[in-house]
Amino acid sequence: MHESIRLSKKIGGKIEVNSKQKLTKENLAILYTPGVAQVSLVVAKNKKLAFDYTIRKNTVAVISDGSAVLGLGNLGPVGALPVMEGKALLFKELAGVDAFPIVLNTQDTDKIIEAIKAIAPTFGGINLEDISAPRCFEIEERLKKELDIPVFHDDQHGTAIVVLAGLINALKVVAKDIRKIKIVISGAGAAGVAITKLLLKYGVKNILIIDRQGIIYKKREGGLNNSKMEIAKITNPKNIKGNVQDALDGADVFIGVSAPNLLTHLDISRMNEKAIVFAMSNPIPEIMPEEAKKGGAYIVATGRSDYPNQINNVLVFPGIFRGALDARVKNISDQHKIKAAVALASLVKKPNRGKIIPDALDRRAVKAVSGVFKK
Amino acid sequence: MHESIRLSKKIGGKIEVNSKQKLTKENLAILYTPGVAQVSLVVAKNKKLAFDYTIRKNTVAVISDGSAVLGLGNLGPVGALPVMEGKALLFKELAGVDAFPIVLNTQDTDKIIEAIKAIAPTFGGINLEDISAPRCFEIEERLKKELDIPVFHDDQHGTAIVVLAGLINALKVVAKDIRKIKIVISGAGAAGVAITKLLLKYGVKNILIIDRQGIIYKKREGGLNNSKMEIAKITNPKNIKGNVQDALDGADVFIGVSAPNLLTHLDISRMNEKAIVFAMSNPIPEIMPEEAKKGGAYIVATGRSDYPNQINNVLVFPGIFRGALDARVKNISDQHKIKAAVALASLVKKPNRGKIIPDALDRRAVKAVSGVFKK
Repeated sequence: MHESIRLSKKIGGKIEVNSKQKLTKENLAILYTPGVAQVSLVVAKNKKLAFDYTIRKNTVAVISDGSAVLGLGNLGPVGALPVMEGKALLFKELAGVDAFPIVLNTQDTDKIIEAIKAIAPTFGGINLEDISAPRCFEIEERLKKELDIPVFHDDQHGTAIVVLAGLINALKVVAKDIRKIKIVISGAGAAGVAITKLLLKYGVKNILIIDRQGIIYKKREGGLNNSKMEIAKITNPKNIKGNVQDALDGADVFIGVSAPNLLTHLDISRMNEKAIVFAMSNPIPEIMPEEAKKGGAYIVATGRSDYPNQINNVLVFPGIFRGALDARVKNISDQHKIKAAVALASLVKKPNRGKIIPDALDRRAVKAVSGVFKK
Repeated sequence: MHESIRLSKKIGGKIEVNSKQKLTKENLAILYTPGVAQVSLVVAKNKKLAFDYTIRKNTVAVISDGSAVLGLGNLGPVGALPVMEGKALLFKELAGVDAFPIVLNTQDTDKIIEAIKAIAPTFGGINLEDISAPRCFEIEERLKKELDIPVFHDDQHGTAIVVLAGLINALKVVAKDIRKIKIVISGAGAAGVAITKLLLKYGVKNILIIDRQGIIYKKREGGLNNSKMEIAKITNPKNIKGNVQDALDGADVFIGVSAPNLLTHLDISRMNEKAIVFAMSNPIPEIMPEEAKKGGAYIVATGRSDYPNQINNVLVFPGIFRGALDARVKNISDQHKIKAAVALASLVKKPNRGKIIPDALDRRAVKAVSGVFKK
């Protein structure tokens, strides 16, 4: 039996809800009735005070519909629950944020939005998780508009931020200018789309995105969904067509957020010199580090802890919500995201091939990332 | 500043979410990715295992729409949040149940039901709280049908159980037969209706219910809503009309779950000898104990901790969910409720005028109440 299953069997869920005050006969009337009525009256009159006097102050919902659980696919709500518990655990252990998992018994976009809006008054922020593309884009976008608390789809933006942080340092090591490089991104799901948008905001000019059908270009046969149509507009300036090998010709950077074993060393050898390869499919990358280096990759990063340069968004989400809650930020903007990536990158004083990003549990990360929300 | 407000200002919310395991570099891969994937796969395949391997095992949602917060009325969701937190605190402190508050940004019956059904896969049980009548009846009824976890509206059933427990002992003290007594209940809201139904199940034959317009009877002028129509059918066998004073003529028991200062000693003096008065409007009862005794009441109980015989459903709800979770009961039945009342009453070995119910924080209550679910 796997150690994770053994532990779950032993302890049940990985998180618990505790009282901050020990209950006594004396404080019952303060913690509960009749005293609590005074708090309710004050908060009902001035709703902003809920962010001072209630759990809203420090509580984030970690919400999934179970449609894209890790790389495992559509496992449904209870299949997603162990992951959301783990995430909640990390929020508390790393950033002191009280995070509570909510898994949803629906995968309908409108119903998800309705449910989240209904329960929102409990929370100070919403972390969306493991919701499949392209629904995740609409869900996040509409919730951001309709709620007055921060909404953050970590699979998109947590990943985009940590990738940008790693890329900033990798480019320092190879001494290339971000405005002049060619980047190939494999995967047009939540992560791929968000990485693309953030890199463009940061100044990258030339990005090609590939999905199962090859390079995404305007008017591709077979049609594109809305999200890919938008991608086609903002990437691939020369409207190149072809497969992943065609895309890699002369590329400086490969970023994989797609599927295991996609590439061989021969594919990597098509890239520009001092190639940077982020192969982040988990647990099995698009190409193993040894193979990528055989093809001439100069810097290789993965999502794995057993190789150097682990690109893991655990470096990002705890600090994002720590900062957003403390600063009472209603919207986590692109500027926040870019500043967070820069702050994270700066924690590595002298980047080199084997060290472009802090360790996954580097305790300085929360402070660096949350600091960008300070007014 | 009230002590409850001072405390809330100091600590924020009254509960927190904690990890059951300290995070280390070594166990990150067990608590989170990649190890957690194994747990997700197992639970997704056999959904019942969520009740062993995830927080579903021990977690209850405490859900309110804020429409009937304590005796304060419609304070909305954030106004309800401090109360739900207090309730969650009591669940953990008294029964070891992980309870999490969810306050809803809607008071529409269908939308409430939709939202609760959407988030249900997270929880092992649903405690409804402070939802106004008559919506609370439909919401609970439909959720009980449509969910496969226990749903319990505490304002209804928690109150009914603790009232029945107190009444069982009070009747022992005055040596009256429950099948022969006349009971007047003031209040046809959530509590009044549930008390009525449970007392009828237990064997009471003659109950009159009064609301603001007086005694409820079949075909009352001005019309009755569905819930009161049902009440009219099952109570008031002689179809008596009149006001609260008319109702009290010759009554053996008065149960108030309505409004402060409703009665004077003159009203009580209309009652039968050895009258039992449960005046549970909180914090100010329908009649103060001194005044009730002046009118001839033999046994007086209130919801207050500063008088003898405090009828408080804190004696009930922690044990109900402790028992239902442990026994994996899908439905909390009337038989469970009656058995819980009997078990609670039996904790008072020799009931007397000043002691018909255990103290609010009597630690034996959880064991007694939860025990009724054992198979």
